[in-house]
Amino acid sequence: MSLLELDARFMERALALADSARGLTSPNPLVGAVVVRDGLVAGEGYHAQAGTAHAERLALAAAGLQARGATLYVTLEPCVHQGRTPPCVSAVVEAGIRRVVVAVLDPNPRVSGGGVAALRQAGIAVSVGCREADARRLNRPFFTWITERRPFVTLKAAMSLDGKIAGWDRSSRWITGEAARRAGHRLRSESDAVAVGIGTLLADDPELTVRLEPAWPREPHRVVVDSRARTPCSARVLSAGSPGRTLIAVTEAAPSENVEALAARGAQVVRLPARDERVDLAALAAELARRDVTALLLEGGGELNAAFLEAGLVDRVVVFVAPMLLGGRSAPTPLEGPGRGLKEAFRLTAMTVRREGEDLVIEGDIDRGESDVHGPR
Amino acid sequence: MSLLELDARFMERALALADSARGLTSPNPLVGAVVVRDGLVAGEGYHAQAGTAHAERLALAAAGLQARGATLYVTLEPCVHQGRTPPCVSAVVEAGIRRVVVAVLDPNPRVSGGGVAALRQAGIAVSVGCREADARRLNRPFFTWITERRPFVTLKAAMSLDGKIAGWDRSSRWITGEAARRAGHRLRSESDAVAVGIGTLLADDPELTVRLEPAWPREPHRVVVDSRARTPCSARVLSAGSPGRTLIAVTEAAPSENVEALAARGAQVVRLPARDERVDLAALAAELARRDVTALLLEGGGELNAAFLEAGLVDRVVVFVAPMLLGGRSAPTPLEGPGRGLKEAFRLTAMTVRREGEDLVIEGDIDRGESDVHGPR
Repeated sequence: MSLLELDARFMERALALADSARGLTSPNPLVGAVVVRDGLVAGEGYHAQAGTAHAERLALAAAGLQARGATLYVTLEPCVHQGRTPPCVSAVVEAGIRRVVVAVLDPNPRVSGGGVAALRQAGIAVSVGCREADARRLNRPFFTWITERRPFVTLKAAMSLDGKIAGWDRSSRWITGEAARRAGHRLRSESDAVAVGIGTLLADDPELTVRLEPAWPREPHRVVVDSRARTPCSARVLSAGSPGRTLIAVTEAAPSENVEALAARGAQVVRLPARDERVDLAALAAELARRDVTALLLEGGGELNAAFLEAGLVDRVVVFVAPMLLGGRSAPTPLEGPGRGLKEAFRLTAMTVRREGEDLVIEGDIDRGESDVHGPR
Repeated sequence: MSLLELDARFMERALALADSARGLTSPNPLVGAVVVRDGLVAGEGYHAQAGTAHAERLALAAAGLQARGATLYVTLEPCVHQGRTPPCVSAVVEAGIRRVVVAVLDPNPRVSGGGVAALRQAGIAVSVGCREADARRLNRPFFTWITERRPFVTLKAAMSLDGKIAGWDRSSRWITGEAARRAGHRLRSESDAVAVGIGTLLADDPELTVRLEPAWPREPHRVVVDSRARTPCSARVLSAGSPGRTLIAVTEAAPSENVEALAARGAQVVRLPARDERVDLAALAAELARRDVTALLLEGGGELNAAFLEAGLVDRVVVFVAPMLLGGRSAPTPLEGPGRGLKEAFRLTAMTVRREGEDLVIEGDIDRGESDVHGPR
């Protein structure tokens, strides 16, 4: 096996370690690290939660004296600045690591490359770019949040094979089966906020909570896009979970009495600029980013979904397709708004499909027409 | 290998032989036959086209004297009545076959079991039911046509991932890529007729011809469901292919001058009973069955698709899903009509998914809530 192949193999392990904390580290990235001495794993670690030890420190600690002269594989450039924990670069140097393999540089332009430079300055050999695309993909929310100051947005919908998210009578419980619904809750668990429009709230009265077994330790924000503050005080989104995790995004058009009633129920009511008499979604995205929302799950309805897409704020689409046909010329669909012609359609890349019980799950990324930006090597 | 396993293996081969003539034998079924002597294939055959030799005869001829004392595997019960070719049972007896394995009995209740009885009367051992489900599935159009006197109907649609068959401006060329479009033409080649509603004809002006390389030898009927005979004389459906293969289904409401103009262009204009001012689809299905249409491909639009479904006339759905999003609250979808609530939704069974180029193809059978009817063994 060549050195490149060996590197890829150990980085694969580091990526898997990082992934094991999916949904738990926000607003920090997922990071995994492996210390390898003489071709054998001497220590492993991953970042489990914001405020706790970084992956590199855990792997170095696990390796102990074996770290001396060893190679460290880490999925993200080690930090050189003092955060909530001491900088990792110092720990790497002190442990006597001889070579560091980094999957991808820190996305923050102010510090990107700084960790690598510091390591090299300390006489450590550094390779950058091993499994870079996978490492970027693993941390898409973190990268988007850092570089664009907005959350990475996943549009999720559950529909019949003929593209309806509810029957003509708006009945929508349940289109998909249990396995798909569980996958939907996993998507929520990987998000920092779950959002719906007021139309969906009034029609379906969703809780927007994460319901998994065992109980999920984090509670994503529940966001209602509700320009005129029409959310009823009896809405489940206010009674389920912690009231303070419910955020009602309104505009100046919202009557004060509604706003006050919702605030009295414990919700955070946020007044945002309007655009075409609706909540300006770019302003909402920026506000959520300020609140450390790196990943937003958008759960409809079709009008809000379309508005997010048209605003250039959707990154990924996950569509659950149930083995049924509903029909209905006026039945709701996952994406409404004015719509586009074929030449201006939103294109998806990297479309995948898998089964969840009797349903299908189709995923794709919105093609932004950008060439992949690679970090320096 | 047990006898049952051996039987299944040779029947598998017979099914594959039968399938090689897919789309070419209508209104006859697909049939394959294998003669096996001492565990070795001595002769093979399949029915290639209506009016030509049956599969059993070809396999027996290929086996020659080796057929004496051999086993014959055949995917459908051999015929005992005189058709366009002499009955196969006599040929089987004359060839000295010792045992016959039949996948499924003839679906025609007037002759079903007759071939098996005649073989047994001649002292030949007969097993029925080997790979029966596959054999039924292979010939679903034939079975439906014989037992229900209507075509087996496949509803085909090409849509964006958000369930739109065209943009808001009705642009629909091309939603799917080349591989999917080719698969669409293969579906047409496997059908005896391709139907659209007048709305789709006016919007898209489709040819409805089979365009494959090399050129397909059969030409399915092109059917327009057009109660008031609004098909323009300039429509491509009239100029592409043989004019006599175009069938315009109208009602008494169709103005005579339109009907005459279309007839003058060579189209077959068929007046059918009306139901709610539209063409009665059960009457259309019966009329097509009379014209030897065993398999009908329904290509929209959403209103005609819904009407066929509500009339209980759709058996199978094939949906091509393109990696794009179109949106549009009034963009057309594959299934319109009044629609259904979730509890009354049409359920699909045996849903499968595969890729065709960049697109997905999702197939399923309409669940009729019938338990599978099995023939006697």
